Amino acid sequence: MASTANASTSDKVTVLTADLVLSQWQGHRRLTRRVIEAFPEDKLFSFSVGGMRPFSELAMEFVKMAEPIVRGVATGKWAAFGSSAWPDTKAALLALWDKATEEIDAVWPTIPAHRFAEVDKAFGQWENSGIGTILYAIDNEIHHRGKEYVYLRALGIDPPAFYDRS
Amino acid sequence: MASTANASTSDKVTVLTADLVLSQWQGHRRLTRRVIEAFPEDKLFSFSVGGMRPFSELAMEFVKMAEPIVRGVATGKWAAFGSSAWPDTKAALLALWDKATEEIDAVWPTIPAHRFAEVDKAFGQWENSGIGTILYAIDNEIHHRGKEYVYLRALGIDPPAFYDRS
Repeated sequence: MASTANASTSDKVTVLTADLVLSQWQGHRRLTRRVIEAFPEDKLFSFSVGGMRPFSELAMEFVKMAEPIVRGVATGKWAAFGSSAWPDTKAALLALWDKATEEIDAVWPTIPAHRFAEVDKAFGQWENSGIGTILYAIDNEIHHRGKEYVYLRALGIDPPAFYDRS
Repeated sequence: MASTANASTSDKVTVLTADLVLSQWQGHRRLTRRVIEAFPEDKLFSFSVGGMRPFSELAMEFVKMAEPIVRGVATGKWAAFGSSAWPDTKAALLALWDKATEEIDAVWPTIPAHRFAEVDKAFGQWENSGIGTILYAIDNEIHHRGKEYVYLRALGIDPPAFYDRS
C-alpha cells in the first residue's frame, strides 16, 4: 500500500477496542430485536420471498452464533453448532434473544486480550482469528437482517430505522 | 460492566487496527461488486420488491459515501453529499466502483491517527467519530446488499456466497 511523508502508519493505529466492538454489536442487536418485534407472529415463522428462510430461522441462527462465539473466543472451548432450543412463538424467541444479550455482556469482559488475534476453529469447524469470527457473526446478522427489510416492505410494514441503534 | 480477576481490561484491548478495517471493508466491497455483476443489466436499474429502490441506486449510494468519507476523515474537508455522476449502464457503474476502490486504497494510509477517534460532521451534516462514520458506511453497504440477495432470489438468480470476500 502506498504511503506518504504525512501518512499515519495505519497498520499500528488502533481504531477499535474490544469495548467499542461490543457496543457496536449490541447496538445492532437492539435493532435486530426491533425487526423481530415488527413481524406479525405468523409471518415471523412462515413468510418468505424467493424461497428464502422465514425470519425466525435467521434470528435463531444469530442466537446460535452470538453467545456461543463470545464464549468460545473467551475460553477456547466450543460446543457443536446449532444445539439451541427451538422457539415457536415470538415471545419465546425474544426471551432467548434477551438471555443471549445478557450473557454476551457478562462473558465479553472475560475474553483474554490475546484471544482476539489468536486463530482458532469456531465450533470446531471454521478457522479464523477471534475477532474475525466475531466480525463474521456481526456482518452475518446485518446481512440477513437487511433481507428482512424487504420482507417487511413486501408485507406493507415500515421497518425500524436502520440508523437507530438505541 | 462486570469484571473478574481474570478479565481483560477490554476497554484498552486493540482488536482492530486501521489496516484490518480497510481490508475488511475492501473484502465486503469485492462481494458487493459481484452482487452488482450478478444482476441482469435491465433489472439492475429497474427491479424492485415492496416498492424499494433498484440496486443501481443503492450501489450509487455506496459510491457516494465510500471514497468521500475516507477523504473527509483524512482531511476534515467534506463536499456536499451526493454530487457524483449518475451511470446508466452496468459497465459505467462498475467503472465508478473500481475507481472508488483505488482511491480508497490510496487515501486510507493518509488518515492521521487521531482522526479515527475525532468527532466531525460527515458531509457537514452527520456528527460522529471518524471510525463511527466509516463503520456506518460499511454496515450500510452490508445492510442494503442483504436486500439484493432477496431481489436476486426473486429473479431466480443464485447470489454470490456471503462468506467469500476474495
